[in-house]
Amino acid sequence: MTSVTESPGARPAAPARLLGSSAGRALMVIVVLLVTIGGAGGLALARDSGARSAERPQGCVAPDRRIQLYAVELPRDPATNQIRLGYGLTPQTASYPGPTMEMIEGECLAITLHNQVPVATLEQLRTDPAHPLGVSLHAHGIKYTQLSDGTVHSNSYVPPGASRTYIWFAKPRDSRGSQGTAGYWWYHDHTVGGPHGTQGLGAGLFGGLVVRRQGDVRPDRTYVTAFGDRQTINLRRSQDADNCDEANPQPGPTCMIAKLGERIEFIVIGIGNDMHTFHLHGHSWADTRTGMVEGANEALIDSIPIIDNRTLGPGDSFGVQVLAGDSVGPGHWMLHCHMQFHSDLGMSTMLHVLDENGAMPPHGGPVPTAPAQSGSAPAGDAAGAHTNHR
Amino acid sequence: MTSVTESPGARPAAPARLLGSSAGRALMVIVVLLVTIGGAGGLALARDSGARSAERPQGCVAPDRRIQLYAVELPRDPATNQIRLGYGLTPQTASYPGPTMEMIEGECLAITLHNQVPVATLEQLRTDPAHPLGVSLHAHGIKYTQLSDGTVHSNSYVPPGASRTYIWFAKPRDSRGSQGTAGYWWYHDHTVGGPHGTQGLGAGLFGGLVVRRQGDVRPDRTYVTAFGDRQTINLRRSQDADNCDEANPQPGPTCMIAKLGERIEFIVIGIGNDMHTFHLHGHSWADTRTGMVEGANEALIDSIPIIDNRTLGPGDSFGVQVLAGDSVGPGHWMLHCHMQFHSDLGMSTMLHVLDENGAMPPHGGPVPTAPAQSGSAPAGDAAGAHTNHR
Amino acid sequence: MTSVTESPGARPAAPARLLGSSAGRALMVIVVLLVTIGGAGGLALARDSGARSAERPQGCVAPDRRIQLYAVELPRDPATNQIRLGYGLTPQTASYPGPTMEMIEGECLAITLHNQVPVATLEQLRTDPAHPLGVSLHAHGIKYTQLSDGTVHSNSYVPPGASRTYIWFAKPRDSRGSQGTAGYWWYHDHTVGGPHGTQGLGAGLFGGLVVRRQGDVRPDRTYVTAFGDRQTINLRRSQDADNCDEANPQPGPTCMIAKLGERIEFIVIGIGNDMHTFHLHGHSWADTRTGMVEGANEALIDSIPIIDNRTLGPGDSFGVQVLAGDSVGPGHWMLHCHMQFHSDLGMSTMLHVLDENGAMPPHGGPVPTAPAQSGSAPAGDAAGAHTNHR
Repeated sequence: MTSVTESPGARPAAPARLLGSSAGRALMVIVVLLVTIGGAGGLALARDSGARSAERPQGCVAPDRRIQLYAVELPRDPATNQIRLGYGLTPQTASYPGPTMEMIEGECLAITLHNQVPVATLEQLRTDPAHPLGVSLHAHGIKYTQLSDGTVHSNSYVPPGASRTYIWFAKPRDSRGSQGTAGYWWYHDHTVGGPHGTQGLGAGLFGGLVVRRQGDVRPDRTYVTAFGDRQTINLRRSQDADNCDEANPQPGPTCMIAKLGERIEFIVIGIGNDMHTFHLHGHSWADTRTGMVEGANEALIDSIPIIDNRTLGPGDSFGVQVLAGDSVGPGHWMLHCHMQFHSDLGMSTMLHVLDENGAMPPHGGPVPTAPAQSGSAPAGDAAGAHTNHR
Repeated sequence: MTSVTESPGARPAAPARLLGSSAGRALMVIVVLLVTIGGAGGLALARDSGARSAERPQGCVAPDRRIQLYAVELPRDPATNQIRLGYGLTPQTASYPGPTMEMIEGECLAITLHNQVPVATLEQLRTDPAHPLGVSLHAHGIKYTQLSDGTVHSNSYVPPGASRTYIWFAKPRDSRGSQGTAGYWWYHDHTVGGPHGTQGLGAGLFGGLVVRRQGDVRPDRTYVTAFGDRQTINLRRSQDADNCDEANPQPGPTCMIAKLGERIEFIVIGIGNDMHTFHLHGHSWADTRTGMVEGANEALIDSIPIIDNRTLGPGDSFGVQVLAGDSVGPGHWMLHCHMQFHSDLGMSTMLHVLDENGAMPPHGGPVPTAPAQSGSAPAGDAAGAHTNHR
Repeated sequence: MTSVTESPGARPAAPARLLGSSAGRALMVIVVLLVTIGGAGGLALARDSGARSAERPQGCVAPDRRIQLYAVELPRDPATNQIRLGYGLTPQTASYPGPTMEMIEGECLAITLHNQVPVATLEQLRTDPAHPLGVSLHAHGIKYTQLSDGTVHSNSYVPPGASRTYIWFAKPRDSRGSQGTAGYWWYHDHTVGGPHGTQGLGAGLFGGLVVRRQGDVRPDRTYVTAFGDRQTINLRRSQDADNCDEANPQPGPTCMIAKLGERIEFIVIGIGNDMHTFHLHGHSWADTRTGMVEGANEALIDSIPIIDNRTLGPGDSFGVQVLAGDSVGPGHWMLHCHMQFHSDLGMSTMLHVLDENGAMPPHGGPVPTAPAQSGSAPAGDAAGAHTNHR
């Protein structure tokens, strides 16, 4: 795994990190490799702090971290034979969704994108011969100048074989009117195929991005769920969207597991052309920035909606934190789009909440059977002979 | 009507009740039959309060109330000849939407569902011969274990002729991080036809559920409006969605009436496959848990959006409380989806706001007529001869 | 331009005004013509303040201002040859969107609508010969009686050649339970073609409406962006949605410009039949009434989501205020629907943020070129020879 560098000098307590790519992540462990760089050093990118810069958003004096990101072609989708592209911290670990990025307000990040997608593949995805070949990085929520917009009209894309450094700034909230940039966001290509990157993000060039605020509660585990076209979750559907090995589950975008009581964070993203809803059985959350709510103003807190199903359109992203199995216990909790024909076609997966011992729970009881003589209703007591549980 | 029991010992002031099924409800009266059960008794379901239970969510020591609920087949839809199913507190009063459930945070409810839908009907709705026959109860927002999930994979459905008791817990908000479950929710089948209950809820197996918080303002009247496929409100459209008898209006899912100044509550539910919007003429509400807002923090209160049109996707539910005719007076106020082809096809009904005397208001003035010589604009004053009102 | 009158006696400090129709607005200047009318006068409409009135919402003692509004036919859409109608403060300045209305809570407005649309045009748009011919004015968010509903069943429409005065009341927030009407709203026809005005608003009979609360921050510039069918923004798409003359840009619904640091307000409206999203590159906002957030309760402020992409359905409207180019600098910032096939088909325009001198910024750097020998990734340092910027 590529080195992820961090400048602790700037923000000693800032736990800025990169959530590991799900594909290469070990069970229940988030591997972060920290390499300290000297306070006197920093990137050559940052020289002046006063004058407005074309490269850096105002407030970013110097990038605090540098990341290498690779755009590569992956094996085609086995179900549809569609081209698949992915971002990765190394070419070998590229995946869709790409690595989940994590920043903290105040932090400035320099990401160098290396376009290793073959020219022939980009040509195949191009919808207009006049459109340039390239991949790019466009981020939601954080601050960037036109040079890091990732669009064709701003010339901020990366031709095949080239590299480009994008600067992201997680502008903090302040008392002078800035609302900050903390939130659940995403990043994606904005160039492959056409000026909106439709072919790039449809092929897999997207990932989750979370910007935390100082003091935010950190989750034990983060999952990205991108709702996309063809009724896919993370570009897979039906069996492929939940291929958890029950005997030896490996957490990842197609195996969402959690231990009872763990704080689980979902970064939910809408991509493509359709509306979807994120519904999770047994769990609910506040309709706030984090899914949680706190504060001393009872009346206002009481006015915040609690929800368990949220509609999202393409481009929308939000996040929720829930305690796995809180009050409801372990189990195989459905996570699906509530648009019925979407869920029926396979836009459905599971959050497997393991028991206290980390073991996969059994399914919920014996298979119910109809009474020998059907058609009659029980008289009063639910504890009748043909009631299957208890 | 089936007995609805309540344990006043646990929460003496808790006005936990069941809003009557609209079909069988008398004008302006909500009939609730309370049967007190001794404090020493309670349900056999609840024994222990410490250990985690597979039947009961944590925090539910013992169900406070028990309800019998029947799933039955109803006459086919007269307009489309579609199969109609309904939940009812008795088989005779089953309806679509089903009876509106009301809970208060802290309350635990045991609902015994009796599947009286004929086997042949369930077979006809089944999309896959391998899928089991049954109906179920899946609720949004409240807490339940896998045994009350209502899904096939958890074996928590009810075969034909059988019964099963579902335990719902309206977990309260507390200072230890629980956000509570107060909200406008719904319940529905998750088994008929396929693993997502698409055929069951499409046939009518759904209803509204409201969980109140201690201190919440109670409405004078509650209406459920479910926006569904084929541009239906409560599975009806056009004339059928508003068949109020103006001379003798009976409130119900197809006749929404209110007296001027009454506090009216709408539970709004999205079902099926399409996006819809809930728009009510002449009335607006805060985008909060209840549609109202209160508190002492002026700046934050001022930041809450006020809306009169809200988009919802399938699975979404929310509620609003409005004062009927507040400021705008009595009248026939349209309630419709603002998706134009939906409203044009009949996804439109009325909130009839009666005057101070409870009488249906007349329509809004004489029919306007064009001036004898059309085409000329009036010169300045609105009180011109061809202005029709005033 | 028609006189816009205001009664300063009622609310001396109230800066109630009408934002100029974009079509006739000069660069960076909002023309408002104020004509004071004596405190003793007022409109004949307002006589009594006690009894409930069929014409005026409760709380509106007397209209504070009067506006003349004309509905006229405009040249057909050059791209599609569709009929275009528009509202205007004069027949000559009618446009789509119509003039942006601005009110302040507490204000009451009398708008006299003159229907100058030719009978033949209205007949052509009619979907049912039994439907009456006419245009109307239906507003979201503010208060009005049935006589100002703009609907056919309330007889509050305007036949060809006739006029009708509509009364709008921006009910204020008060301590007795009123949530107020401050918000970003819109107004539209509800009569042309059918009972929902689908043909009228599809032809262009709509406009933005903002109701401010006392103390609200005022923007330097307001733009209306209506997302509609056929993937249009303000009923135009592709090149037509952004026809800014870079040498001499004239602000309007097809040329959105702003100077660096100006406070820009967008009134975002959904019309028609489809879902859309409002996404603006480089900028974000709080999900509140104004897009801003302030107050002393840190925990609650911290819970408000910050977003840069918002889904809206038909009938929805919201507003955001952003500081143009804040932190990110000048540039050509895309404003588009994130539904990919919508943006690809032309539902995309630009917010052109001019530099400190008011000059159009250049595009973002040289066109990137691929390295001579493609396919190899750079080794470590982003400042490699084939990196195009810096």
